[in-house]
Amino acid sequence: MADYREMWSLLDMDLEKHDELCAVLPEFYGEIYMDQKNRPEGMNYFNMVVSEIHGLRVKELNDGKKDGKKVVGTFCVFVPDEIITAAGAVSVGLCAGSDFWHPDGEKIVPKNTCPLVKAAVGAYFGKTCPYFQSCNLIVGETTCDAKKKAWEIFSKEIDTHVMELPQMKREKNERHWEEEVALFKEKIEEVTGHTITEEELYERIKLHNEKRSVLKRLYDFRKVDNPPISGKDVLLITQIAFYDDPKRFIEMTNKLCDELEERVKENSGVYEKDAPRLLITGTPMAIPNWKMHHIIETSNAAVVAEETCTGTKYFKNLVSEEEKDMEGMIKNLASRYMKTNCAVFTPNKNRIDDIINMYKEYKADGVIYYSLPFCTCYAAEYMSVKEALEKEGIPVIMIETGYGLEDAGQIKTRLEAFLEMLDK
Amino acid sequence: MADYREMWSLLDMDLEKHDELCAVLPEFYGEIYMDQKNRPEGMNYFNMVVSEIHGLRVKELNDGKKDGKKVVGTFCVFVPDEIITAAGAVSVGLCAGSDFWHPDGEKIVPKNTCPLVKAAVGAYFGKTCPYFQSCNLIVGETTCDAKKKAWEIFSKEIDTHVMELPQMKREKNERHWEEEVALFKEKIEEVTGHTITEEELYERIKLHNEKRSVLKRLYDFRKVDNPPISGKDVLLITQIAFYDDPKRFIEMTNKLCDELEERVKENSGVYEKDAPRLLITGTPMAIPNWKMHHIIETSNAAVVAEETCTGTKYFKNLVSEEEKDMEGMIKNLASRYMKTNCAVFTPNKNRIDDIINMYKEYKADGVIYYSLPFCTCYAAEYMSVKEALEKEGIPVIMIETGYGLEDAGQIKTRLEAFLEMLDK
Repeated sequence: MADYREMWSLLDMDLEKHDELCAVLPEFYGEIYMDQKNRPEGMNYFNMVVSEIHGLRVKELNDGKKDGKKVVGTFCVFVPDEIITAAGAVSVGLCAGSDFWHPDGEKIVPKNTCPLVKAAVGAYFGKTCPYFQSCNLIVGETTCDAKKKAWEIFSKEIDTHVMELPQMKREKNERHWEEEVALFKEKIEEVTGHTITEEELYERIKLHNEKRSVLKRLYDFRKVDNPPISGKDVLLITQIAFYDDPKRFIEMTNKLCDELEERVKENSGVYEKDAPRLLITGTPMAIPNWKMHHIIETSNAAVVAEETCTGTKYFKNLVSEEEKDMEGMIKNLASRYMKTNCAVFTPNKNRIDDIINMYKEYKADGVIYYSLPFCTCYAAEYMSVKEALEKEGIPVIMIETGYGLEDAGQIKTRLEAFLEMLDK
Repeated sequence: MADYREMWSLLDMDLEKHDELCAVLPEFYGEIYMDQKNRPEGMNYFNMVVSEIHGLRVKELNDGKKDGKKVVGTFCVFVPDEIITAAGAVSVGLCAGSDFWHPDGEKIVPKNTCPLVKAAVGAYFGKTCPYFQSCNLIVGETTCDAKKKAWEIFSKEIDTHVMELPQMKREKNERHWEEEVALFKEKIEEVTGHTITEEELYERIKLHNEKRSVLKRLYDFRKVDNPPISGKDVLLITQIAFYDDPKRFIEMTNKLCDELEERVKENSGVYEKDAPRLLITGTPMAIPNWKMHHIIETSNAAVVAEETCTGTKYFKNLVSEEEKDMEGMIKNLASRYMKTNCAVFTPNKNRIDDIINMYKEYKADGVIYYSLPFCTCYAAEYMSVKEALEKEGIPVIMIETGYGLEDAGQIKTRLEAFLEMLDK
């Protein structure tokens, strides 16, 4: 890896503390990722991206900034990337996936805060995330309580725009969300000093739809009998989608998919024959949170899909490309994002249908209901999901776990008991 | 106490389990309330209300139901009682203040749910709250995540209407809340079969303003040097305000206030001379949650005010009585309720001003930041409140505690250290 210390220093990072993070990540990644059998060649690109996680991409962002390109940090699949990129800015998902950041986070938010939010706060205030340090603007949303209150903390230090996501999905809420998307466009125009044209926005709607389509292409390979790629690898790719350059990401993921197509023809899979197939549903897994997948896939089981924000919620539903006028496009953008069946909505019954449909589509044998601790909305929905799945005869187990590895053994034991019970 | 078992049985209550609750409450109340020195005579009415807590008032509700009067259960100071009572229905705050209900609650919601919501769910599904069992309708609101998701659970069993409280307080949010108030009126009209007239609503606006004014009158007595009534008693009265008949409540509280007026003249107070005066800010205390007040007032300190939903948030700000047309009144109602500075809003800076103003008005010596566990919004605001209070030289301590008494000794120790530190 090139030496980025000068860049990090210019970004006002805490170099010493950041070194500690840099020191552990390669080994951590190596153990989890590099030992996988029969990995596709195309994963080399994503290996490189991880090895350069706080380097190359950050350099790209900062080179862009020298040319006046703004950097916009986001946390949530409800923030329309199309608007950010249409204004010539770059959208990056922010650091939130490691307990390395928790000690710094706990200085500012209560200990009983979800690991994701606590990590993000710690990464920012501890100055150990070069993405945060590169941002001109942070975009929040009123999804869950923890995130909603976190923006207030960020806003004391950095320009922070909050989109008010409705709590329901009635007709009037759709209109409200359209207004929020329009307000977001105004804010982005103000930050970038660039008025978005209809052509620019249309172009970006097509680009991000293409990104969604390549992810769908990738996920479809997991539906086959012996998947040619591991769940762990697909999770990584989806995590990288949040901050990689969209065009390069599309190109490299398509290349990987071409390889997977060949593999399927050759029936070259990555799992043991008859490995139980699991669908994960629940809370997002920010990079480098690979814990659940790693436990599952080192227990002779396969993760075949994720009904999460770092899974299908990220790319499901395209923005309609029918309208090319500004008002129509704003409407279409709002409509696409509102289709996301997040647990912050009340009611959120469609999520149950999503889970059941995905269980069938991906030919899963069981469902892991994954929840980060203190995620009230997802934890609360478990009861209803369980009830509905049991009615369908679908086995489900709830696993609530944070980022630390202290409970990995216990989870493995519970998981193995669950796997034995499955009808395989 | 009269025998209400037949009534409870008709309400389909779990009599055996409910007996356990009835068996402990009188002693619990006696220990906390009846030993207070120099209590005002006027508290006798409220003693009676508590001794009849699941009896007399429930009988009134059910006698009313025989005459077609509907009962509407609420949980939150954002639900406009004016509309409920204008339609001839009765509004009652619901059971949520005891850990007696937690075992039943934990069968349905995650353990890590705030004690208030967990108790409410347990009280309903365990069939041990006669108020719940008397309801024709439950009214929820999208305030915090835990409550928002709880309505989905209630709605499976009972008619539940959810008001979508905005997450922000911009101009457009005010308009949105007006629409929600109007939708609520429609729902109440549907449930009661009664179309609310302008006269009826105006009448009720005046009535509930009168109720607010009498509470303000009561709280004002706490501002004097040697308050003539304990914080514990005032908390009880405010808790009772949520479910007592409004007219009788106004009458009895005014009567008590007349007595307090005399006491002030005679300089007859309830505390030791120079008892440190504490302001409590934070989460609501549903009946019979008297824990924090009891610990404070048995530590030779006085609670002189509560910046909580079971404190000033309940009665602060009157509804304007200027308009008498329906549209104008809906607007005024919405406007009054939106002034409440709840931690679910982002940002919520005005709450800090409220705390500082109350600290001065009530001549407090220190602030107790009280939070129930897993109350993300209030816990998250502590940092900003602390920062602002410290800037003003106002001592503050955070106490996070649930309903159980296992940590009472530890809290007392922390509190005593805090009291010693105060400039008294």
